[in-house]
Amino acid sequence: MDPFMQAAIEEAQLGLAEGGIPIGSVIVHHGRIIGRGHNQRVQQGSVIKHGEMDAFENAGRLPAHIYRASVLYTTLSPCAMCSGAILLYGIPKVVIGENLTFMGEEESLRARGVQVDVLQDDTCVELMRSFIARKPELWNEDIGE
Amino acid sequence: MDPFMQAAIEEAQLGLAEGGIPIGSVIVHHGRIIGRGHNQRVQQGSVIKHGEMDAFENAGRLPAHIYRASVLYTTLSPCAMCSGAILLYGIPKVVIGENLTFMGEEESLRARGVQVDVLQDDTCVELMRSFIARKPELWNEDIGE
Repeated sequence: MDPFMQAAIEEAQLGLAEGGIPIGSVIVHHGRIIGRGHNQRVQQGSVIKHGEMDAFENAGRLPAHIYRASVLYTTLSPCAMCSGAILLYGIPKVVIGENLTFMGEEESLRARGVQVDVLQDDTCVELMRSFIARKPELWNEDIGE
Repeated sequence: MDPFMQAAIEEAQLGLAEGGIPIGSVIVHHGRIIGRGHNQRVQQGSVIKHGEMDAFENAGRLPAHIYRASVLYTTLSPCAMCSGAILLYGIPKVVIGENLTFMGEEESLRARGVQVDVLQDDTCVELMRSFIARKPELWNEDIGE
Protein backbone atom coordinates (compact mmCIF):
# COMPACT_ATOMS: atom_id res chain seq x y z
CA MET A 1 0.00 0.00 0.00
CA ASP A 2 1.19 3.48 -0.87
CA PRO A 3 2.08 5.08 2.50
CA PHE A 4 0.40 8.37 1.57
CA MET A 5 -2.86 6.68 0.58
CA GLN A 6 -2.55 4.75 3.84
CA ALA A 7 -2.32 8.10 5.66
CA ALA A 8 -5.42 9.36 3.81
CA ILE A 9 -7.28 6.18 4.81
CA GLU A 10 -6.25 6.71 8.44
CA GLU A 11 -7.77 10.20 8.22
CA ALA A 12 -11.00 8.69 6.82
CA GLN A 13 -11.08 6.12 9.63
CA LEU A 14 -10.50 8.86 12.20
CA GLY A 15 -13.49 10.73 10.76
CA LEU A 16 -15.61 7.57 10.96
CA ALA A 17 -14.63 7.06 14.60
CA GLU A 18 -15.77 10.62 15.30
CA GLY A 19 -19.20 9.85 13.81
CA GLY A 20 -18.36 11.64 10.57
CA ILE A 21 -18.24 10.93 6.85
CA PRO A 22 -15.22 8.66 6.19
CA ILE A 23 -13.26 10.58 3.57
CA GLY A 24 -9.65 11.58 4.18
CA SER A 25 -6.90 13.38 2.34
CA VAL A 26 -3.24 14.30 2.62
CA ILE A 27 -1.12 16.77 0.65
CA VAL A 28 2.47 15.66 0.00
CA HIS A 29 5.40 17.89 -0.94
CA HIS A 30 8.68 16.26 -1.92
CA GLY A 31 7.81 13.07 -0.06
CA ARG A 32 6.58 14.76 3.13
CA ILE A 33 2.99 15.23 4.32
CA ILE A 34 2.39 18.98 4.69
CA GLY A 35 -1.37 18.86 5.29
CA ARG A 36 -3.89 16.22 6.32
CA GLY A 37 -7.58 16.25 7.03
CA HIS A 38 -10.95 14.57 6.85
CA ASN A 39 -14.55 15.51 6.19
CA GLN A 40 -15.91 17.78 8.95
CA ARG A 41 -19.62 18.01 8.08
CA VAL A 42 -20.76 16.27 11.25
CA GLN A 43 -17.92 17.20 13.59
CA GLN A 44 -17.76 20.94 12.82
CA GLY A 45 -21.08 21.38 11.02
CA SER A 46 -19.00 22.43 8.03
CA VAL A 47 -20.39 22.45 4.49
CA ILE A 48 -17.03 23.36 2.92
CA LYS A 49 -14.62 21.06 4.77
CA HIS A 50 -14.66 17.99 2.63
CA GLY A 51 -11.59 15.82 3.28
CA GLU A 52 -9.50 17.54 0.62
CA MET A 53 -10.55 21.03 1.76
CA ASP A 54 -9.69 20.18 5.37
CA ALA A 55 -6.23 19.05 4.23
CA PHE A 56 -5.74 22.35 2.35
CA GLU A 57 -6.88 24.32 5.40
CA ASN A 58 -4.65 22.38 7.80
CA ALA A 59 -1.65 22.84 5.48
CA GLY A 60 -2.07 26.58 6.03
CA ARG A 61 -1.01 29.49 3.86
CA LEU A 62 1.69 28.36 1.42
CA PRO A 63 3.58 29.95 -1.47
CA ALA A 64 2.37 29.01 -4.96
CA HIS A 65 5.55 27.06 -5.73
CA ILE A 66 4.84 24.59 -2.91
CA TYR A 67 1.35 23.77 -4.21
CA ARG A 68 2.74 23.40 -7.71
CA ALA A 69 5.19 20.70 -6.57
CA SER A 70 2.69 18.81 -4.39
CA VAL A 71 0.54 15.69 -4.79
CA LEU A 72 -2.92 15.46 -3.24
CA TYR A 73 -4.12 12.04 -2.05
CA THR A 74 -7.80 11.49 -1.36
CA THR A 75 -9.74 8.35 -0.50
CA LEU A 76 -12.63 9.33 -2.82
CA SER A 77 -12.90 10.94 -6.26
CA PRO A 78 -12.98 14.73 -5.65
CA CYS A 79 -16.24 16.66 -6.11
CA ALA A 80 -16.55 19.93 -8.06
CA MET A 81 -15.60 22.07 -5.03
CA CYS A 82 -12.49 20.07 -4.13
CA SER A 83 -11.48 19.79 -7.79
CA GLY A 84 -11.85 23.55 -8.04
CA ALA A 85 -9.50 24.02 -5.08
CA ILE A 86 -7.00 21.67 -6.76
CA LEU A 87 -7.18 23.86 -9.90
CA LEU A 88 -7.05 27.14 -7.97
CA TYR A 89 -3.80 26.20 -6.27
CA GLY A 90 -2.29 24.43 -9.27
CA ILE A 91 -1.82 20.98 -7.71
CA PRO A 92 -0.32 19.00 -10.61
CA LYS A 93 -1.16 15.43 -9.49
CA VAL A 94 -4.03 13.77 -7.63
CA VAL A 95 -4.08 10.17 -6.40
CA ILE A 96 -7.61 8.85 -5.76
CA GLY A 97 -8.51 5.87 -3.58
CA GLU A 98 -11.64 4.97 -5.51
CA ASN A 99 -14.32 6.34 -7.83
CA LEU A 100 -16.84 3.48 -7.74
CA THR A 101 -19.12 4.91 -5.04
CA PHE A 102 -18.85 8.51 -6.33
CA MET A 103 -17.41 9.81 -9.59
CA GLY A 104 -16.09 13.32 -9.15
CA GLU A 105 -14.64 15.81 -11.62
CA GLU A 106 -11.78 13.64 -12.83
CA GLU A 107 -12.34 14.49 -16.48
CA SER A 108 -12.37 18.22 -15.75
CA LEU A 109 -9.09 17.85 -13.87
CA ARG A 110 -7.45 15.89 -16.69
CA ALA A 111 -8.76 18.42 -19.25
CA ARG A 112 -6.92 21.13 -17.29
CA GLY A 113 -3.65 19.20 -17.24
CA VAL A 114 -3.82 17.54 -13.82
CA GLN A 115 -2.46 13.98 -13.62
CA VAL A 116 -5.16 11.81 -12.06
CA ASP A 117 -4.36 8.28 -10.83
CA VAL A 118 -7.14 6.02 -9.49
CA LEU A 119 -6.14 3.09 -7.27
CA GLN A 120 -9.60 1.42 -6.80
CA ASP A 121 -8.49 0.43 -3.33
CA ASP A 122 -10.76 -2.12 -1.59
CA THR A 123 -10.50 -0.45 1.82
CA CYS A 124 -11.58 2.92 0.38
CA VAL A 125 -14.53 1.33 -1.45
CA GLU A 126 -15.67 -0.56 1.63
CA LEU A 127 -15.45 2.54 3.86
CA MET A 128 -17.87 4.40 1.58
CA ARG A 129 -20.15 1.45 0.70
CA SER A 130 -20.87 0.63 4.33
CA PHE A 131 -21.21 4.31 5.28
CA ILE A 132 -23.65 5.11 2.46
CA ALA A 133 -25.72 2.02 3.33
CA ARG A 134 -25.97 3.16 6.96
CA LYS A 135 -26.42 6.93 6.47
CA PRO A 136 -27.70 7.67 2.95
CA GLU A 137 -29.27 11.03 3.93
CA LEU A 138 -26.00 12.33 5.39
CA TRP A 139 -24.10 11.24 2.30
CA ASN A 140 -26.63 12.88 -0.02
CA GLU A 141 -26.35 16.11 1.96
CA ASP A 142 -22.58 16.08 1.52
CA ILE A 143 -22.84 15.91 -2.27
CA GLY A 144 -25.72 18.39 -2.50
CA GLU A 145 -28.41 15.84 -3.32
CA MET B 1 -28.22 49.48 -6.21
CA ASP B 2 -29.44 45.93 -5.77
CA PRO B 3 -29.80 45.52 -1.97
CA PHE B 4 -28.20 42.06 -2.02
CA MET B 5 -25.15 43.27 -3.94
CA GLN B 6 -25.04 46.15 -1.47
CA ALA B 7 -24.93 43.58 1.35
CA ALA B 8 -22.10 41.71 -0.40
CA ILE B 9 -20.19 45.02 -0.75
CA GLU B 10 -20.70 45.70 2.95
CA GLU B 11 -19.15 42.31 3.67
CA ALA B 12 -16.19 43.20 1.43
CA GLN B 13 -15.78 46.53 3.22
CA LEU B 14 -15.93 44.79 6.60
CA GLY B 15 -13.12 42.49 5.42
CA LEU B 16 -11.07 45.49 4.31
CA ALA B 17 -11.55 47.18 7.69
CA GLU B 18 -10.24 44.00 9.34
CA GLY B 19 -7.07 44.18 7.22
CA GLY B 20 -8.30 41.45 4.88
CA ILE B 21 -8.96 40.93 1.19
CA PRO B 22 -12.09 42.94 0.24
CA ILE B 23 -14.35 40.32 -1.31
CA GLY B 24 -17.81 39.65 0.07
CA SER B 25 -20.75 37.41 -0.68
CA VAL B 26 -24.31 36.71 0.38
CA ILE B 27 -26.63 33.79 -0.37
CA VAL B 28 -30.29 34.72 -0.84
CA HIS B 29 -33.27 32.37 -0.61
CA HIS B 30 -36.71 33.69 -1.59
CA GLY B 31 -35.65 37.27 -1.00
CA ARG B 32 -33.96 36.68 2.36
CA ILE B 33 -30.22 36.53 3.12
CA ILE B 34 -29.50 33.08 4.60
CA GLY B 35 -25.69 33.29 4.60
CA ARG B 36 -23.13 36.07 4.37
CA GLY B 37 -19.36 36.20 4.54
CA HIS B 38 -16.08 37.65 3.37
CA ASN B 39 -12.59 36.45 2.56
CA GLN B 40 -10.81 35.17 5.69
CA ARG B 41 -7.25 34.59 4.43
CA VAL B 42 -5.73 37.24 6.68
CA GLN B 43 -8.19 37.18 9.57
CA GLN B 44 -8.38 33.40 10.07
CA GLY B 45 -5.32 32.32 8.07
CA SER B 46 -7.78 30.42 5.89
CA VAL B 47 -6.89 29.23 2.40
CA ILE B 48 -10.40 27.93 1.68
CA LYS B 49 -12.58 30.76 3.01
CA HIS B 50 -12.91 32.99 0.00
CA GLY B 51 -15.92 35.31 0.34
CA GLU B 52 -18.31 32.85 -1.30
CA MET B 53 -17.03 29.89 0.74
CA ASP B 54 -17.40 31.90 3.97
CA ALA B 55 -21.01 32.67 3.00
CA PHE B 56 -21.69 28.96 2.38
CA GLU B 57 -20.10 28.05 5.71
CA ASN B 58 -22.01 30.71 7.64
CA ALA B 59 -25.30 29.61 6.04
CA GLY B 60 -24.72 26.23 7.69
CA ARG B 61 -26.00 22.79 6.76
CA LEU B 62 -29.04 23.15 4.48
CA PRO B 63 -31.26 20.75 2.54
CA ALA B 64 -30.57 20.49 -1.19
CA HIS B 65 -33.87 22.15 -2.12
CA ILE B 66 -32.83 25.37 -0.35
CA TYR B 67 -29.57 25.66 -2.31
CA ARG B 68 -31.44 24.91 -5.52
CA ALA B 69 -33.76 27.88 -4.98
CA SER B 70 -31.03 30.33 -3.93
CA VAL B 71 -29.04 33.09 -5.58
CA LEU B 72 -25.40 33.74 -4.69
CA TYR B 73 -24.14 37.33 -4.85
CA THR B 74 -20.41 37.98 -4.89
CA THR B 75 -18.44 41.19 -5.35
CA LEU B 76 -15.87 39.45 -7.61
CA SER B 77 -16.04 36.80 -10.35
CA PRO B 78 -15.79 33.41 -8.56
CA CYS B 79 -12.57 31.37 -8.81
CA ALA B 80 -12.47 27.64 -9.64
CA MET B 81 -12.94 26.62 -5.99
CA CYS B 82 -15.94 28.86 -5.35
CA SER B 83 -17.46 27.98 -8.73
CA GLY B 84 -17.05 24.32 -7.80
CA ALA B 85 -18.94 24.89 -4.55
CA ILE B 86 -21.70 26.63 -6.53
CA LEU B 87 -21.91 23.55 -8.80
CA LEU B 88 -21.70 21.07 -5.91
CA TYR B 89 -24.71 22.57 -4.18
CA GLY B 90 -26.64 23.32 -7.35
CA ILE B 91 -26.98 27.09 -6.94
CA PRO B 92 -28.90 28.08 -10.09
CA LYS B 93 -28.00 31.78 -10.32
CA VAL B 94 -24.95 33.89 -9.50
CA VAL B 95 -24.81 37.70 -9.53
CA ILE B 96 -21.27 39.06 -9.83
CA GLY B 97 -20.15 42.57 -8.87
CA GLU B 98 -17.33 42.73 -11.41
CA ASN B 99 -14.95 40.62 -13.49
CA LEU B 100 -12.53 43.31 -14.68
CA THR B 101 -9.86 42.76 -12.02
CA PHE B 102 -10.22 38.95 -12.02
CA MET B 103 -12.07 36.69 -14.46
CA GLY B 104 -13.21 33.54 -12.72
CA GLU B 105 -14.93 30.44 -14.04
CA GLU B 106 -18.00 32.16 -15.47
CA GLU B 107 -17.91 30.16 -18.70
CA SER B 108 -17.70 26.85 -16.81
CA LEU B 109 -20.70 27.88 -14.72
CA ARG B 110 -22.75 28.87 -17.77
CA ALA B 111 -21.76 25.62 -19.53
CA ARG B 112 -23.24 23.74 -16.57
CA GLY B 113 -26.51 25.65 -16.71
CA VAL B 114 -25.92 28.32 -14.06
CA GLN B 115 -27.32 31.79 -14.84
CA VAL B 116 -24.48 34.29 -14.44
CA ASP B 117 -25.17 38.03 -14.32
CA VAL B 118 -22.32 40.55 -14.17
CA LEU B 119 -23.06 44.07 -12.89
CA GLN B 120 -19.61 45.71 -13.47
CA ASP B 121 -20.24 47.80 -10.39
CA ASP B 122 -17.82 50.71 -9.89
CA THR B 123 -17.56 50.24 -6.13
CA CYS B 124 -16.62 46.57 -6.54
CA VAL B 125 -13.99 47.41 -9.18
CA GLU B 126 -12.47 50.17 -7.06
CA LEU B 127 -12.31 47.95 -3.95
CA MET B 128 -10.20 45.40 -5.81
CA ARG B 129 -8.12 47.85 -7.91
CA SER B 130 -6.93 49.78 -4.87
CA PHE B 131 -6.38 46.62 -2.83
CA ILE B 132 -4.33 44.89 -5.57
CA ALA B 133 -2.24 48.05 -6.03
CA ARG B 134 -1.48 48.14 -2.29
CA LYS B 135 -0.99 44.41 -1.60
CA PRO B 136 -0.20 42.54 -4.82
CA GLU B 137 1.56 39.64 -3.04
CA LEU B 138 -1.44 38.95 -0.81
CA TRP B 139 -3.76 39.05 -3.78
CA ASN B 140 -1.55 36.67 -5.78
CA GLU B 141 -1.47 34.26 -2.85
CA ASP B 142 -5.27 34.24 -2.74
CA ILE B 143 -5.52 33.18 -6.38
CA GLY B 144 -2.66 30.70 -6.20
CA GLU B 145 -0.16 32.78 -8.17
